[in-house]
Amino acid sequence: MAPETFTFRRIGTIHTPFREAAGTPIQPVFGAGVEGEVEVDAAVAAGLDDLDGFERIWLVYALDRAGPCSLTVVPYRDVVAHGVFATRAPSRPNAIGLSVVRLIAREGARLRVADLDVLDGTPLLDIKPYVPAFDAFPGARDGWLAAGASGRGRADDRFHRG
Amino acid sequence: MAPETFTFRRIGTIHTPFREAAGTPIQPVFGAGVEGEVEVDAAVAAGLDDLDGFERIWLVYALDRAGPCSLTVVPYRDVVAHGVFATRAPSRPNAIGLSVVRLIAREGARLRVADLDVLDGTPLLDIKPYVPAFDAFPGARDGWLAAGASGRGRADDRFHRG
Repeated sequence: MAPETFTFRRIGTIHTPFREAAGTPIQPVFGAGVEGEVEVDAAVAAGLDDLDGFERIWLVYALDRAGPCSLTVVPYRDVVAHGVFATRAPSRPNAIGLSVVRLIAREGARLRVADLDVLDGTPLLDIKPYVPAFDAFPGARDGWLAAGASGRGRADDRFHRG
Repeated sequence: MAPETFTFRRIGTIHTPFREAAGTPIQPVFGAGVEGEVEVDAAVAAGLDDLDGFERIWLVYALDRAGPCSLTVVPYRDVVAHGVFATRAPSRPNAIGLSVVRLIAREGARLRVADLDVLDGTPLLDIKPYVPAFDAFPGARDGWLAAGASGRGRADDRFHRG
């Protein structure tokens, strides 16, 4: 039986200084201060109203340059393999990316943001407000990452198409 | 020009006690203690290895029963309208849902989870580990939600198909 599929559309573009995976921060915390812009399609820009009251926002996007899916990966933060769902590596069965970034300002259909870990030109799928009461669990146990043997904060090309 | 689209596939199913939107918690924090199961397709179950070291996990899923997109919504937590991207309402341009739930146990291709706010049978698209260093910003300013005029923690049917 064919798997059930869901089709989503690009609703905007994330503009960043990062043209290739190598050297790109692997998470927003490692891209602290890196500024960029989220350009939202005019047709949906009304959906941004009141977003600028939030200090941080979730960007949901298509990892459009991710390499082929691999169920077991050696993530950037370790030197041994883990199941891909136990990592944030981009080579996932569904290449959906998720980053919490700092919202500096909204200017019409454009959002100036900081703390970016996304490749330039990345297709935007959704924006959600970051709500500490819903999203912040500072004490949550973090598995292999607590003891991860790599201190790496920037990507190489292991998970992307060349 | 036709918009660029991205097609993702169901990689599993989220089983919960909630058969209809009305009465379902609107966020995992309002579903504290509600248990359910994430059933992952056998073909990708190897990707779950080492996930059980994490106390919480992100579920990324298709909001398959969301109603038509509306760019301006009156969210459950307020009585006035906001842009949909400034809310977590399901009636979004791309109906992608995001919930952080508590991982109780992994049993093969099944995850026992708690703190659910998802309708039964929801199609799973991705799982990511919850990493406090990446995801937890307890002090982030939370816009209209800080002063939201509704204390509602459970949904009604305003954002779902009947």
